[in-house]
Amino acid sequence: MFTLYFAPHTCALASHIALEQAGASYKAVRVDFSRNDQRSSDFLRINPKGRVPVLATDRGVLTETPAILMFICQSFPDARLAPLDDAFALARINAFNSYLCSTVHVAHAHRMRGYRWADDPLAIAAMQKKVPQSVGECFEVIEREMLQSPWVMGDHYSVSDIYLFTLAQWLEADGVDPERFPKVADHRRRMSQHPVVSKVVASELAIS
Amino acid sequence: MFTLYFAPHTCALASHIALEQAGASYKAVRVDFSRNDQRSSDFLRINPKGRVPVLATDRGVLTETPAILMFICQSFPDARLAPLDDAFALARINAFNSYLCSTVHVAHAHRMRGYRWADDPLAIAAMQKKVPQSVGECFEVIEREMLQSPWVMGDHYSVSDIYLFTLAQWLEADGVDPERFPKVADHRRRMSQHPVVSKVVASELAIS
Repeated sequence: MFTLYFAPHTCALASHIALEQAGASYKAVRVDFSRNDQRSSDFLRINPKGRVPVLATDRGVLTETPAILMFICQSFPDARLAPLDDAFALARINAFNSYLCSTVHVAHAHRMRGYRWADDPLAIAAMQKKVPQSVGECFEVIEREMLQSPWVMGDHYSVSDIYLFTLAQWLEADGVDPERFPKVADHRRRMSQHPVVSKVVASELAIS
Repeated sequence: MFTLYFAPHTCALASHIALEQAGASYKAVRVDFSRNDQRSSDFLRINPKGRVPVLATDRGVLTETPAILMFICQSFPDARLAPLDDAFALARINAFNSYLCSTVHVAHAHRMRGYRWADDPLAIAAMQKKVPQSVGECFEVIEREMLQSPWVMGDHYSVSDIYLFTLAQWLEADGVDPERFPKVADHRRRMSQHPVVSKVVASELAIS
């Protein structure tokens, strides 16, 4: 039995969908960002980094989306969410996921969380201004170089599809027209039509 | 036979040390950042993202430090650079490595690569100004919450030690006094005394 700490509209959605698709037994607990609960002493005891997702297991707490996703893949091998017996193919998935967390998510974060990297309000505004360009450039690379068909890794659906779908949710709010990237847009549409995906997306908005 | 594309003083050092400690057969090729060779058409054909590290294998190219490190662990299991048969312990390593790439490295990158996230020179200067604080806060979390003893994961040396050592090289240039973090400083000293580590560090500066 796992507990997933999440907030709606965050990258925790990827871990949430993966748990559901893996058939895991878990409870989803919403962390209220509007009350800044991720900085509360109770939550900081669970995750000193003050962020979601957090996956609490009977052996301890896991953080960081790429790590949680790979843990779910390995814990539920029958769900076939990653090619666990092929080190190179697995590394391609890890590389894609790492690009999402360290470059794409970071570009996006400069819209809402510029205070992490500068104090001057004008600098924070300058960061916000560049988000459409920097996020757009990330998705150009994904569209042109990374996203195969029909899935990120070609014929085999994987956690990289879940993670890409999660971050592609943010394009409009980041000032990027999703239709600039036909393959990403088509992938997102197909993902959103998956019953498990739509169920998890709806459930995140319903949990109070 | 692998080819590692690297530049000195970058995070490619982690992959370089891991290859050497794994006993891999590889060639190290220096990418000259002073000539901006990482943006050359030849290099962009290898890695469209225009960054190092790149590990070229007979099955194709791998990028992103966490993915390359895990690939080396899995390709050379006898080197015991990760607990490959324990999904939870492996996830702790992946989480640590993911924090380094998506938070610590990113905080550091605002000193030299602020242009990625803003165009205004004043904003870029404001980012540089905050680097000592933001990088310092990352290492406070590592010191207080993450780094066990004697190694990052406790008794067992792993690729997380290699990766932490690599990023801890940047503290002084980022305006952070390493001695604020006694455990990190001690870890760094012990790592730098390892013959394989010192050999790789020296070799990166010698390869032209």
